[in-house]
Amino acid sequence: MTVGFQVVATDGAARCGRLTTAHGVVETPCFMPVGTVATVKAMKSDDVAATGARLILGNTYHLMLRPGAERIAALGGLHKFMNWPHAILTDSGGFQVMSLAGLRRIGEEGVEFRSHIDGSKHLLTPERSIEVQHLLGADITMAFDECTPFPAERAAVEASMELSMRWAERSRGAFVERAGHGIFGIVQGGVHPDLRERSARRLTEIDFDGYAIGGLAIGEGQETTFAMVEATVPFLPEERPRYLMGVGKPADLVGAVKRGIDMFDCVLPTRSGRTGQAFTRAGPLNLRNSRHADDRAPVDRGCRCPACTGYSRAYLHHLVRSSEILGAMLLTAHNLTYYADLMTAMRDAIAEGRLAEFAVP
Amino acid sequence: MTVGFQVVATDGAARCGRLTTAHGVVETPCFMPVGTVATVKAMKSDDVAATGARLILGNTYHLMLRPGAERIAALGGLHKFMNWPHAILTDSGGFQVMSLAGLRRIGEEGVEFRSHIDGSKHLLTPERSIEVQHLLGADITMAFDECTPFPAERAAVEASMELSMRWAERSRGAFVERAGHGIFGIVQGGVHPDLRERSARRLTEIDFDGYAIGGLAIGEGQETTFAMVEATVPFLPEERPRYLMGVGKPADLVGAVKRGIDMFDCVLPTRSGRTGQAFTRAGPLNLRNSRHADDRAPVDRGCRCPACTGYSRAYLHHLVRSSEILGAMLLTAHNLTYYADLMTAMRDAIAEGRLAEFAVP
Repeated sequence: MTVGFQVVATDGAARCGRLTTAHGVVETPCFMPVGTVATVKAMKSDDVAATGARLILGNTYHLMLRPGAERIAALGGLHKFMNWPHAILTDSGGFQVMSLAGLRRIGEEGVEFRSHIDGSKHLLTPERSIEVQHLLGADITMAFDECTPFPAERAAVEASMELSMRWAERSRGAFVERAGHGIFGIVQGGVHPDLRERSARRLTEIDFDGYAIGGLAIGEGQETTFAMVEATVPFLPEERPRYLMGVGKPADLVGAVKRGIDMFDCVLPTRSGRTGQAFTRAGPLNLRNSRHADDRAPVDRGCRCPACTGYSRAYLHHLVRSSEILGAMLLTAHNLTYYADLMTAMRDAIAEGRLAEFAVP
Repeated sequence: MTVGFQVVATDGAARCGRLTTAHGVVETPCFMPVGTVATVKAMKSDDVAATGARLILGNTYHLMLRPGAERIAALGGLHKFMNWPHAILTDSGGFQVMSLAGLRRIGEEGVEFRSHIDGSKHLLTPERSIEVQHLLGADITMAFDECTPFPAERAAVEASMELSMRWAERSRGAFVERAGHGIFGIVQGGVHPDLRERSARRLTEIDFDGYAIGGLAIGEGQETTFAMVEATVPFLPEERPRYLMGVGKPADLVGAVKRGIDMFDCVLPTRSGRTGQAFTRAGPLNLRNSRHADDRAPVDRGCRCPACTGYSRAYLHHLVRSSEILGAMLLTAHNLTYYADLMTAMRDAIAEGRLAEFAVP
């Protein structure tokens, strides 16, 4: 048995599901905090779990370079290394190496690149990406793909998607089946509905444990993102989880869940937390703003996180202005709690058949 | 009743005591984590309490400039502002303004200085320092003093000490008595035993709730520090707490406790934690060192802190090398736990009459 997925409720295109992995059950729709280099930045692992998250994302590219996948394997795997007993999904490294403009060369075999840390030369192929993710001990492995740049000519997008599909097949072949572990394919095709359909059909033929939609949230705009989700979801199997990569803002999550997406990851809540931004039930808040200097109210009234239950906006404002680490810690904890609670609220709305009217400011 | 102090056990010159404040009882000898700008850096307030600390230090100079003492008072005081329900001692700002070389001018009235944040002009007098500490709501207020530079000519040290004694009297006069709140005087006199004695006698005449030894740990060396403690302690009243300011390394604490000191503060455990240094029962450790890259052992076997119970040296090494905030968080928690446990171990040794053989590597 690979990872299991059971749809437990539906509301229009949206669904509630249970994703069963070697490291526990994850209720979907879910948001995955990003733990790039084996840490969700500014959070102890038990603090991450306290937000409600049960599945986090690790980055193959970063971890293979430092501290090294073989080292993490020798130390007992990524879960033990970072003291995270719940599930982990690792990306394939594809997105990261593509963004190394000038430092990488793409061929049929894979991507040759230089490390951003020490300039050392590496070759990342579908087979090596899958091996690295196995060494890390990922519950969910992602197929190695090329993240097509945006904007790009249709011919380039098509060629890139076709390369990703060949790599997807090689990734599937390289994946070692283990109980509670699965591999997801990644739909590409830029902003072209027909290419998205072709990609989704091709991946479904290969047969993955779940399907991601990649190459979006890179500048095409929310309307186009949603259009691409709508162009893809009908061609993915109902009984498998769907993951929209790199998304997004609260309203993006709501819109995508309404269109049938089950999983998300994004650096937004963690990165924003380190720059004084808070997501709240009343909309986003910039704690750096001097209007908070004397405000005794919590960041978000009714929020259960350590920032909102213990501290005022005035205090957070002071920490942010003073560049104190505690400001990043508290706002990261708050934002991840906000995201976790948003997903819980959407699951409740789906179960009760009232997602249509669900909205965020 | 001001702050209370009760000696509950002695062993040679060392003693165990109970310091009773408006925000709880503090067992001495104790170490005060430094919370300069209303945060013990990289620690949530409940995490600070979890280390065992029940008394922390806040900095008058920093807080009066940002966010401002009147603002903190309007927000309910420093305890509420930083969500710290236990006791707080505030320094007087004297040490900080003295270190603003070129930005301050000392006169009989006080010190005129420019803010390191925005260059604005301020006058800090004994009366204003005591008022600021009152506004902050400090359980223990420190008299405003001049921290004599080291090295300095004897005549300059003497004049500086005498100025501090006149300021001590003005500080005492400006202090508003409240239940559970007290004011400590600060012995000066550089490295001259007779000046230290004169200062201690003068402060005792004025009558404070506790006595600090200031102007040490600024380059004179451990032997001289200890000599000055020995030159001062006999002239301080037995029934009042004694606080050695800005000290120090573990061995400094042990030596000073043996010489009759009850209280300490130092940035060492917190600052070291942010640069990859850990204090352990086997001596200090630099986690940046590559020999830790594959080490599955905890930082300090037997330590109860979150770093040692959840993570390996290999992981901490990785975090430090990657400049991750979590590295600073975990090592700060560890170092403060180490310091708290060191004080507990010394209290136990005093109670059992075996402090003489107590030593740290």
